[in-house]
Amino acid sequence: MYTSKLKGVVPVWGIVLQQGSEVSLARQIFAALKTSILTGQLPAGEALPSTRALAKGLGICRNNVVEAYDMLWAEGFLVRHQGAPSRVAPGLHLTPSPATAAPPPAQPAPPPILWDFKTGQPDLSLFPLAAWNKTVAEAARTLQPDVLCYSGPQGYAPLREEIAHWLLRSKSMVVDPQDIFITGGATQALYLLVTILHRQGRAFALESPSHPAVRTVLADGNYPFYPVPVDQAGADIATLQNKAVSAVYITPSHQFPLGGILPAARRAALVRMATENDFYIIEDDYDSEFRYSGNPISPVYAMCPARVAYVGSFSKTLFPALRLGFAVLPKTLQEAWRHYRTFMDVQNPVLEQAALAAFLQQRKMDRHVQKMRRAYSEKRALLLGALQSEFGTAAQPWGDASGLHLALQLPGAHFGPRFTAACRAAGVRVTTVAQYCPVPNEHGDKLLLGYGHLAPDQITNGVAALHRVVTAAAYLPEDKT
Amino acid sequence: MYTSKLKGVVPVWGIVLQQGSEVSLARQIFAALKTSILTGQLPAGEALPSTRALAKGLGICRNNVVEAYDMLWAEGFLVRHQGAPSRVAPGLHLTPSPATAAPPPAQPAPPPILWDFKTGQPDLSLFPLAAWNKTVAEAARTLQPDVLCYSGPQGYAPLREEIAHWLLRSKSMVVDPQDIFITGGATQALYLLVTILHRQGRAFALESPSHPAVRTVLADGNYPFYPVPVDQAGADIATLQNKAVSAVYITPSHQFPLGGILPAARRAALVRMATENDFYIIEDDYDSEFRYSGNPISPVYAMCPARVAYVGSFSKTLFPALRLGFAVLPKTLQEAWRHYRTFMDVQNPVLEQAALAAFLQQRKMDRHVQKMRRAYSEKRALLLGALQSEFGTAAQPWGDASGLHLALQLPGAHFGPRFTAACRAAGVRVTTVAQYCPVPNEHGDKLLLGYGHLAPDQITNGVAALHRVVTAAAYLPEDKT
Repeated sequence: MYTSKLKGVVPVWGIVLQQGSEVSLARQIFAALKTSILTGQLPAGEALPSTRALAKGLGICRNNVVEAYDMLWAEGFLVRHQGAPSRVAPGLHLTPSPATAAPPPAQPAPPPILWDFKTGQPDLSLFPLAAWNKTVAEAARTLQPDVLCYSGPQGYAPLREEIAHWLLRSKSMVVDPQDIFITGGATQALYLLVTILHRQGRAFALESPSHPAVRTVLADGNYPFYPVPVDQAGADIATLQNKAVSAVYITPSHQFPLGGILPAARRAALVRMATENDFYIIEDDYDSEFRYSGNPISPVYAMCPARVAYVGSFSKTLFPALRLGFAVLPKTLQEAWRHYRTFMDVQNPVLEQAALAAFLQQRKMDRHVQKMRRAYSEKRALLLGALQSEFGTAAQPWGDASGLHLALQLPGAHFGPRFTAACRAAGVRVTTVAQYCPVPNEHGDKLLLGYGHLAPDQITNGVAALHRVVTAAAYLPEDKT
Repeated sequence: MYTSKLKGVVPVWGIVLQQGSEVSLARQIFAALKTSILTGQLPAGEALPSTRALAKGLGICRNNVVEAYDMLWAEGFLVRHQGAPSRVAPGLHLTPSPATAAPPPAQPAPPPILWDFKTGQPDLSLFPLAAWNKTVAEAARTLQPDVLCYSGPQGYAPLREEIAHWLLRSKSMVVDPQDIFITGGATQALYLLVTILHRQGRAFALESPSHPAVRTVLADGNYPFYPVPVDQAGADIATLQNKAVSAVYITPSHQFPLGGILPAARRAALVRMATENDFYIIEDDYDSEFRYSGNPISPVYAMCPARVAYVGSFSKTLFPALRLGFAVLPKTLQEAWRHYRTFMDVQNPVLEQAALAAFLQQRKMDRHVQKMRRAYSEKRALLLGALQSEFGTAAQPWGDASGLHLALQLPGAHFGPRFTAACRAAGVRVTTVAQYCPVPNEHGDKLLLGYGHLAPDQITNGVAALHRVVTAAAYLPEDKT
């Protein structure tokens, strides 16, 4: 008999049990025997000890072993025949799999960043976290069980209503909540728009410079694109004449990153082209809530809702980890959007949507944006003052007085990778506009300074540090070559 | 002078102001004039009234009009010259855009669904909403401001730790938290895996039948696929021999929808093929937490972590609108995953992640899953009893005793669209297995009955109603042809 064969030899079959583990004894036996089978220590056809014998050997209750054998049998590791011992099933021996790829060798630590002028960063230290958390807790309490289930790819209806009101209050933008589609931030909206607007034989048109997000999605999909030159007044729309375009991606309220406002004549020309040549306009309104003189710029969407997909976000007005944005879509795009969103990730989680709806409905959003507009306006004034006192007339700010960053031109300079490396070595993180240009040798004399998230002393000290690097002329001539 | 020209004619320029509106007077004036410019009522070069005159005509403070004119000027609708009236800029007249597409004509209302046997629906009436909301509120209170910013595409580190513990507790699955990537539900994990695993000249392999999610993503991307036949023991892996495959999508713990457990020998064969032919295995473990006899099935991942991307979800254990799932990834896939996730939607919102981490850490998850396992097990027993009493031996359940649905075979029957329509007319929603087969004429004698979400009387009455439709043989012969 089988049990006697092993007696005194390996009575516990190499099984080492841990008492008090969160993993049950049965699971531990199962895992140990499975490993022995897969490594070939227990070959095909090998008979296992009886449950009684193994339990005795391990000094545990027999039902643990019975449960382990049942699991092995259910997953096909054992074959059972009435009255005979359980045997190892055939075809299970695996040669050891190659080791998973080793982690890349550790890089030397980069120098510490003391002054980080990265763009698009809101000042989260001023975020009304307590008020927001109260809204979240209330939203959680009042959510009905029916919204725990899927509610569809368009988004939570009360939030779409409140966003429509918010767009009217803040930008006089008249939008039907039925045309609003909630997204996981503007990034997802842009990803989806690229996915549904791509047409064979046509290209996307993108501002140059522009944010890398859309360009990267296009590159990943092997979709061609035209760069549209940008001047003080935003995208030079006339260059699109007679181009076979599937969609034009623009930032008309505050060109990213140069800051221009697209003038009405260029807007009208673009809308005319879109209608005549049957393409769509993707309008990314990423920070127009923060305009420091005058009112928010009205969107191109208002000129032609049938041709413009308007993209908004709450990452800068509230906080990035909220992951809430939206698109206002022409009816003609809505069916495709619903389809792709459904199979991409179905919908946003409901809780943030309910909390944001309440935050908007209670006008906490309005008060917060007003407060932040004042705070950012002061930081911008401080930055402009620091630049004036360090650089004088050698540096000229570009663009409209809005947003969380400033584009700065130093005529005659040429900022390249050596310059940004020199800045990093001096504790300054700064972006060149050239980094955002798909076309080489454009806007080489311009830098981007994000200030929204910086404290006053970081702004003044950072500008002084930047000035020291810029005037250490040894770097600049090299970059020029 | 200009103001006199218009006196007594159209003193307010067609502007109708609404006092007490949330839209400021300046915005209302701006919007009205802009519309007049775009429609051509105010042609290029037309001089506007002075701010003083228009304010007088409208009976409002002059600063409202000044602000409106500033906005019009900033957006390029007006041209200004020192001392001269503001004039309408050239090139702004738009021909009216074609009307947005009319909504589709209303469909006649479908008959009411009295008994809905849809699959994959958890019983949300038993969800511990109060305990969950308490966890959410606590998580919100304890979140530090630094997590309000982007934290990267991999997901909240404390949640990844807790998921690793949970996988060990619940399935004896040993996983490094560094290999766990949080997603917006399993749907997003599968979408991303298709995106990064596609290789030119190779096809995906999919179980037939299978859930339509992955098949749809493949079809949308024009990626070819092989159907892998499914029997009582899950996917017939041997059919993949010598096929040029980029990835194989399987549901080995509980084949969706037929319910088989993939035996260890087939698992080992698949892992061997994957290693030899350099492809990956996508393991979708969509409901193995709910197994009613014995322990959860251990994953294929445990056999070969270098070749298997394991996908899990909390949509069924908690609730779908949570939108939280995860993938456990081989190191070789992690860089591409990070890239695509970053440009798709950056990351999940942080709040749900923090709440779920606490829910797991406090073992509330374990208690909930245990409770639901009992509840679903009772529903399953009730369903099997009802089927036995209505159909007797004419109907045979397939698959393992687990999950939230049952596959039912009625040998000799052939269930097609006419049958499901007849069910709908009788108030029953039911899915045929054939609907989930990319290959026609497969599994035509099988139905799927989701029971997780149904109340006991819905199960018994629904089975009786289903039996009435099945025995109304008038429908079945038609389907057979």
